[in-house]
Order: sequence, then C-alpha cells, then structure tokens
Amino acid sequence: MDLLTEHVEAVRLVDHHVHGWFTEPGDLTAFAGALNEGSGSPMAGLDLPVGLAVRRWCAPLLGLEPHASAEDYWAARSATPYDVLVATFLEAAGVEHWVVDTGLTPDLLALPDPRSEIVRLELLLEEVRDESDVPGAFRARLDDAARRAVGTKTIAAYRCGLDIDWSRPTDAAVAEAARRSPARVADPVLVAFGVHEAAARGLPIQVHTGLGDRDLDLHRADPLHLLPLIRSIESPVLLLHCYPFHRQAGYLAQAFDHVSFDVGLAINHLGARSVELVAESLELAPFGKQLYSSDAYGLPELHYLGARLWRRAMVTVLGGWVERGDCSVDDAMRIVDLVASGNARRVYALDRNPEAAPRVLPL
Amino acid sequence: MDLLTEHVEAVRLVDHHVHGWFTEPGDLTAFAGALNEGSGSPMAGLDLPVGLAVRRWCAPLLGLEPHASAEDYWAARSATPYDVLVATFLEAAGVEHWVVDTGLTPDLLALPDPRSEIVRLELLLEEVRDESDVPGAFRARLDDAARRAVGTKTIAAYRCGLDIDWSRPTDAAVAEAARRSPARVADPVLVAFGVHEAAARGLPIQVHTGLGDRDLDLHRADPLHLLPLIRSIESPVLLLHCYPFHRQAGYLAQAFDHVSFDVGLAINHLGARSVELVAESLELAPFGKQLYSSDAYGLPELHYLGARLWRRAMVTVLGGWVERGDCSVDDAMRIVDLVASGNARRVYALDRNPEAAPRVLPL
Amino acid sequence: MDLLTEHVEAVRLVDHHVHGWFTEPGDLTAFAGALNEGSGSPMAGLDLPVGLAVRRWCAPLLGLEPHASAEDYWAARSATPYDVLVATFLEAAGVEHWVVDTGLTPDLLALPDPRSEIVRLELLLEEVRDESDVPGAFRARLDDAARRAVGTKTIAAYRCGLDIDWSRPTDAAVAEAARRSPARVADPVLVAFGVHEAAARGLPIQVHTGLGDRDLDLHRADPLHLLPLIRSIESPVLLLHCYPFHRQAGYLAQAFDHVSFDVGLAINHLGARSVELVAESLELAPFGKQLYSSDAYGLPELHYLGARLWRRAMVTVLGGWVERGDCSVDDAMRIVDLVASGNARRVYALDRNPEAAPRVLPL
Repeated sequence: MDLLTEHVEAVRLVDHHVHGWFTEPGDLTAFAGALNEGSGSPMAGLDLPVGLAVRRWCAPLLGLEPHASAEDYWAARSATPYDVLVATFLEAAGVEHWVVDTGLTPDLLALPDPRSEIVRLELLLEEVRDESDVPGAFRARLDDAARRAVGTKTIAAYRCGLDIDWSRPTDAAVAEAARRSPARVADPVLVAFGVHEAAARGLPIQVHTGLGDRDLDLHRADPLHLLPLIRSIESPVLLLHCYPFHRQAGYLAQAFDHVSFDVGLAINHLGARSVELVAESLELAPFGKQLYSSDAYGLPELHYLGARLWRRAMVTVLGGWVERGDCSVDDAMRIVDLVASGNARRVYALDRNPEAAPRVLPL
Repeated sequence: MDLLTEHVEAVRLVDHHVHGWFTEPGDLTAFAGALNEGSGSPMAGLDLPVGLAVRRWCAPLLGLEPHASAEDYWAARSATPYDVLVATFLEAAGVEHWVVDTGLTPDLLALPDPRSEIVRLELLLEEVRDESDVPGAFRARLDDAARRAVGTKTIAAYRCGLDIDWSRPTDAAVAEAARRSPARVADPVLVAFGVHEAAARGLPIQVHTGLGDRDLDLHRADPLHLLPLIRSIESPVLLLHCYPFHRQAGYLAQAFDHVSFDVGLAINHLGARSVELVAESLELAPFGKQLYSSDAYGLPELHYLGARLWRRAMVTVLGGWVERGDCSVDDAMRIVDLVASGNARRVYALDRNPEAAPRVLPL
Repeated sequence: MDLLTEHVEAVRLVDHHVHGWFTEPGDLTAFAGALNEGSGSPMAGLDLPVGLAVRRWCAPLLGLEPHASAEDYWAARSATPYDVLVATFLEAAGVEHWVVDTGLTPDLLALPDPRSEIVRLELLLEEVRDESDVPGAFRARLDDAARRAVGTKTIAAYRCGLDIDWSRPTDAAVAEAARRSPARVADPVLVAFGVHEAAARGLPIQVHTGLGDRDLDLHRADPLHLLPLIRSIESPVLLLHCYPFHRQAGYLAQAFDHVSFDVGLAINHLGARSVELVAESLELAPFGKQLYSSDAYGLPELHYLGARLWRRAMVTVLGGWVERGDCSVDDAMRIVDLVASGNARRVYALDRNPEAAPRVLPL
C-alpha cells in the first residue's frame, strides 16, 4: 500500500452532517426504501447505484463475498443481531466525531457518539409559532439551543425553495407571517427570519441544496439562489449535498470566505461514480472549504458506506493527481486531513481549542 | 474478448426513439447538414465530434480505413448503391425493434422494420385545430392513434418551452386557445391539453428535453421544468436527449417511479466523449429507468453510429466498474440488458406478453 | 516524445483574451490575492487548485523543484529581478500574439507584445455618458476605437446580468437611460446599445460568461441568457470563461455559426482538473469554434500557466482520443492548430490576409 492510501485508510473523520439509525432493524421494505431517497417503490432500493455499492462494500462486513446477491445480503443482515450490525458498520466508518442533525424523525432513530448537535431552524420556528411573541420566543429558543448545539440547519429548499427574498424581515413581518402560517412552516419570511437570527449569533448555518427526495423542486435548490443571503451575513454557511450543482457550490466556496460545502448524500447515491463526483468537487474551491459528510439516515450501512466511498474517491482522485504530477504526496495528505476533519473542526469550533485548528500552509 | 465485451457486442437493441432515413441519398450539402443539428453551414457538418465519429466508425463499413478523409468518405458513400448503404448500416446497428417518431418530415423518410409507432401530440393538435369541437376531435384522433401507436411525444420544448403552466386545462380553455392558435400549434394550453389527454389514457409520453436545433431555448428545455407535470400524472414519462441536463434527468428518474430517460442524440453528437456522457447518465437513476436511443434522422450512418458508440461506452464504463470492483460482470451484463431493450419493452409493453418483461433482481 | 506531444509543445498560441501584468512585483498579499479571483483573504490564494498549479508548474522556471513550498516559491520569486521574472514566464508561454483587454486597471499593468486590442464597451459608454448626444458620441468613439482594435468586449454579466432585454434600443431610450445612469454604467439599455452598435459594425464581441469575482451573480452569467441577442446579430460572439456553463457554451457554438467560446480563466483556476475541463469543452462544438485564452491578469505566472495547462490538457485529452481510436494523430494535430491560433486569427482577422486563414478539412 502506498503512503497516500495508507494515510487515507487511517485518517479519522468528522462526519459533519449525519442522522441516526433506525432503533429497529425493520423489514425488507423499510431497508430498500431507505436506500432510495426518492422512490416510493420498496423494491427499487437495491436496483440502483447505491444498491450495487451496498452489495459491494457492505457485504464483506457481514461475512459475504463482494457483490453478494441482494437475496443473500438480506439473509445475512437479518441473521445478524441488530446491535452487532450497528456496531460493525459504525466502527468500520472510522469516524471520530459526528455532527448530528437531530431534527428528522427523532423517535425512530438512535444517535451516534461522540456527537455534537445541529438544530433545525424550521423546527424551532414550528415550536414557537403559536406563542404571543413569536420573534422573542424564537430568539429565546435559539439562544438556548446555541448553548448545546454547534450549528443550525435550514431546509428552506424543501419548504419554500432557495429562490426567495432573503432580506432580513422585521419583527412585525415575522409576527404577521406566523399568524398566517400552518403548523408546517414554509413561509419565506419565517424561514429568512430563522436564518438571519442564526447569523446574528455567529452560528454556522447548514443549508440543504441540490438533490433530495421527491417533494423538493431541484431547480429551486440551486445554491446560487443563496447569493443575496451570502452577501448579507458573515456566519459560516455550509452548503450540503449540492449535486448536481456541486460546481456552483465550489464557485461559491471560492468566491466567499465564509462559504464551505460538501457532496454528502450524493457520494452514497452515486456509488461507483462517487469517484468522479469527488473529483469534480475538487475543481475550484479552496482546500479549506470542503467537508466530509455521509448524510446517512436510518441504515447503519450508510454511515459506513459514505466513509468507505469517500476514502476510495480521495485515494483515486488525489492519487491520480500525484501520479500525473499535479501535487506531491504531502500536499495530497494535507488536503485529505482538511476535508476529513480539519475544516469541520475549525468551522464548528469543535475543540474550542486553538491547538486543534487545522495546520495551514506555512507562508 | 472478455465476457462483458462479448455480451455488449451481441446484445440486440430496442432503439426507443428514432426517425427514418432519407428516401434519396442526397448531395454533400444534405449529408453534412444532417450531421449538424444546429448549423446552417453545409460544410460544418464534418468538422465536429460527430464528423470525426463518422470517419472513424462508419468508414470501415464502406471498405475504408478508420479515419478516412472526409473526401474519401464522401466518394465511397457516393459510389455505394443507396439501398446497399442503407442495409449495411441498419443491419450493423444490431437493433431488433425500432420505436419510430413518424411525425417529422414523413415525405422525405423511409422507415425501419420491425417497428412500433410514436404519435406526435402537436401534430394531432394541428390536424384538429379547425374542427368545431377541438377537444372532442382531438380525443377521437388520440383514441384512434392509441390503437396503432405504443406511445406519444411532445415537442413542447420547441413550441413554448417546458416552463409553462402544466395544469390540466378545461375544454373551454382549449377551445378558446384553438381559436387563437396559428396553424403551427405553440400555445401552452393546447400543448398541456395534449399531454394530459395522453396521460389520461395511460400512454407513455416522450418529452424532448435538452439539446436540439437552433430554434430551441435550451434553458427552457431543462427537464426540471416538468416537475409540476410529473407530479400530476401517472403515465410513463420518457425524457429524451437531456444533455446537458442529463444529471437532472437522472435525478427525476430516481425520484419518480414513472420517469425514465435516455441520452440519445447526444451520444452521436458527442462522438469521442459519448463514453463520459454515458458514464454520467449512470450516476443516480435506477438501472430500470434508462433506455437506449439513437434519435437518428436522415442518414443511415446515424442509426448505426448511435448503437456503435453506445456499445463502446457501455463496455468502457461498466468494464471500468468491474475492473475497479464496483460491480460483478453479471451485474454489468444485467444493466446492459435493461438499457439495451428490457426497459423499453416494459415501458412500451412491446410484447404485450409478461414473459418478455425484463428479468428483475431476485430479492 | 510522441508526435502529438511534440506538436502541442511546439505550437505557438494566440492568447485571445488576456490582460497585462503588474508594473511592480508587489508584496505577498498582492501576489496571493491575484491568484484568487474571488476571495478577500490574502493567504487563501495559494491554498487552492491554482496555488498547487503555480507550485507545480511555475516553480521549476525559478530554479526550484516542482511542488516547492509556498514559502520557498515566494522567496525565489522575490529574489528574481522583476524584469527577468516577467520575461521568463512570458517567453515560456509560447504565445505569438496577444489579444489584450486593455480596460481593466490600465494604470497598474504593463502589456505584452505583439498585441491587438479589445475595447470594453462599458468603458466607452462611461466616457460619453455626460455628452449632450450620447448615442452619437458613442458611435464616434466606437468608430475611432474600431480603427485600432480587433474587437470589443462586454461585461454585462457584472453590470446587469445577461438575463436582460437584448432588443436594440432607440436613441431616445439610450439618451434617457444615460441621464439616469450613475458614472458606473449598469443600465441594461446602455449595455444593449453598446453591443448592438458593435454588432452593426461587424466587430467581434467578447462576452464575459460564467465564473468571475464575487460581485457577479453566477446564475445570471449563464451564456444561454444570450440567446435573444445571438439570434438578432451576425457579428462574431466570443463567449469567455463559461465555467460551469461550458457545456451550454459548446451547445451555442454548435447551434450558431457566429458563436465561439473558450474556457480561459477556468483552466488556470481548476489547475489539476483543467484536463477534464478541456475534455468537456470538446464535447459538442465544432473544432473551428473554440479558442485558447489564459485571461491572465496581474501575475506573469498566469500568462504562462494558462498555456502550460492547456498544452498538457490537449495532449492528455486528444492523446486519449488517439489511443482509444477516436481520431487519427493528424486529426488531433489539426484540432490543436485551430484552437491554438487558427480560429482566433480567423475570427479577429488578425492577418487581414486570406493566406493566414486556418487550413480547412478538404471536402
């Protein structure tokens, strides 16, 4: 094994955007459904790139050959005690810290450790929608959340699209919008309010962009719609997923000091092609502006698979750069360290400790 | 030759979106013009990627060396009896069934066999535009067409763009729009009416998306504009061409059970780079949601070239997956079978015979 | 060295879109800042793909090993007399003619020779904005500029976006817009007026599209927004940069005889990945519609690096085509010649001499 491969295989990750796994192992329908972000068809889950990747990379951890049939995979999975299954995949991920979005179906999920928490802004908004002083109640909740969480997240892409008026609304406008709002908050005024309140506190703000499940309008999830917001705040903005707009995300990360991005979720879903996705994500952005995430949800396989595919991609892409002379092995290892954990530690101040800041290129 | 290459070379195709070839061999201007979807310049046709591909792949079938000069190619073509020329390229395509769009310049074209027919909705609309009861007359025509055709096609992208109001119009609105409409139907109300009538009958609906000739607004041909339509119907939707929005098309095919797509036309036009195009088309969509097509029009070379380039791409891309361990040879061959013919046979019910349905991954 | 590599290494270039270099060597802040089109952070300049590329490709010209540290690179650069530094990189670029955009910070820059000039339309507009007869004064200035310049350029993307009303305004509308306009011209009416006046004179029109620095709205710089303009004029249109919309640019170059494009600026900024960028730029466009440019500004390193990365990319991409049989070595060398200089010589009529026109494929 060459030096770069050894390094990438050994490096411990910060998974900066992840959910928990199902508390129950579930049946085949739940399993296959959780592999397919979009489809309602239970059987479709294994017959796409992420299904191939599970059969390739996860099967050996259950004692099967790579490319075991879906039937054999399901049989072996069912025969494994669930706590063993979870421990196997979680440990194999090689993740040293999880930054967990706790806002999605919390009752169904168990959460990894050690972890930090990300607070969903729309969830907080929904909790205070009926209060008499909505802006004040939201601020109090957010202040409270900021004591335990390392950052926030907006799913504006699902609620109203990213192509909204991102100017900071007045409290009166917020109160009025809250009066009109159904229980599921989707009003652009409320969404923009939540984001600006997070920014006013200097909290990192994760933004769902790019692919997601079927109730999302993909063209309204292009991160370029965020330009007016990005220009008006200084808090770290973390663009999540981004595919197929990851080149646009890379541009934003290059143009704006406070913008970073990942290609999580897409890495798992593209399977074999995650190598080329990671390659494209390394086109324009500074190396200090990219983060690793799995966006795993529900299946412990996905917590592992994201890490497995990312490691393979980094070895292939950066190994290719080294081979054709574009960078040295030292450069490549430094890029790996930044994306693996250094950038996340810095952006979320995970260590509250200046010594844990990423090493920077001496100038 | 390895097993996968052998399999791909031997597999018989369903070309699910194709036109006929010119009834007359034509002169050099017609030949070069037919190679260049967009340009008005007769000589430009051979000096682009598709021209290189013709000289590379078609020349040997006329007894020339690969990369024969354009001059030599034209001389050899002119010296070949036209019926021999047609038979040579059509046979070499290895297509077992053609799904033919008969609506484009029918007087100039001869059609391949065995074939099924696709009906252009805008053409039917134009045939009934002057009737006293336009909605009723259209329904009668469509019912009639549905008895002989396996599906329908809309060229909304050319007529009004895909970014229109896709809600189902009332008969009164249709009648009013027909009164206003010139002979060439481009009114969004009429276009949406035609599509919803096809959907109401459960007919497959092909939609031109992505690249085309110069009277098309490419940004208005992004398949993401179809989201409101896709959400409101259940008929199979077949996104055609898609480039450079093929990743968006793959997303739609993953998110919605009734959406499939191809990268036909673009395969021929990209020539050398069709390998990478096919690779990108295999990123996100389920393997049961992609189809082969050439979109060949006019030149029998294109009926062959589409198949030739697709076979080369599948061997290269899936062979690469096998080599780096992403899938087994069996997986790769199964994907080939689905895209080559299985998915088209299922979507268009070509066999009206459950035994001809594609094999599915046993679960 | 194989024949193709030899040819690409030896070919002399026309850099059809370039600026000058700083008249003073500057300090580290200026140096690093000039490497990063977007960021305000002085240190960020070296910690991204273009920084890696400088350390890889420029270091050896200063007597260092490839991949020298940023510290060593800066030390060696500082120890080199500035006129020697400039001469070293400029000569190593292998450029035989520069087409220079003289409108950006002219006081800070020295210009390369031999050169032709490109006139910025917005600059001319700003010069005449206070005249009593703005349309007339602009026309007189443009006529004058056309005697010394080979083409024009619009930075509409920075001023008002490309998604404007591109119809030709009346003189009355122009006069009215000029009255309203601040010193920095950003009014769409004025911008469209300038472009149409250039077109009326048959002057080539360069258009900034795609990536740029942070005051640009990237989604409003998609070249597809130019369709109404492209359809209404006949002058050569040169789409600059284009990334990440280079596939859209390739489509326009294929569909319209008078449209060409480059991927300059992006080649430098993508560094290692410029190979794949150039590959994607060769997907759809005729080979007579692509041009080489560096878009170098400020640092003589960039005048060299653009050429260095382009040569490497062409050898890799076209060498790959030759290797997998997509074209002959002769075809590849002809494509190189066209993009290296032939197309620029033709579009800008650099030789005013029919014998200097590019060789065309004999038909």
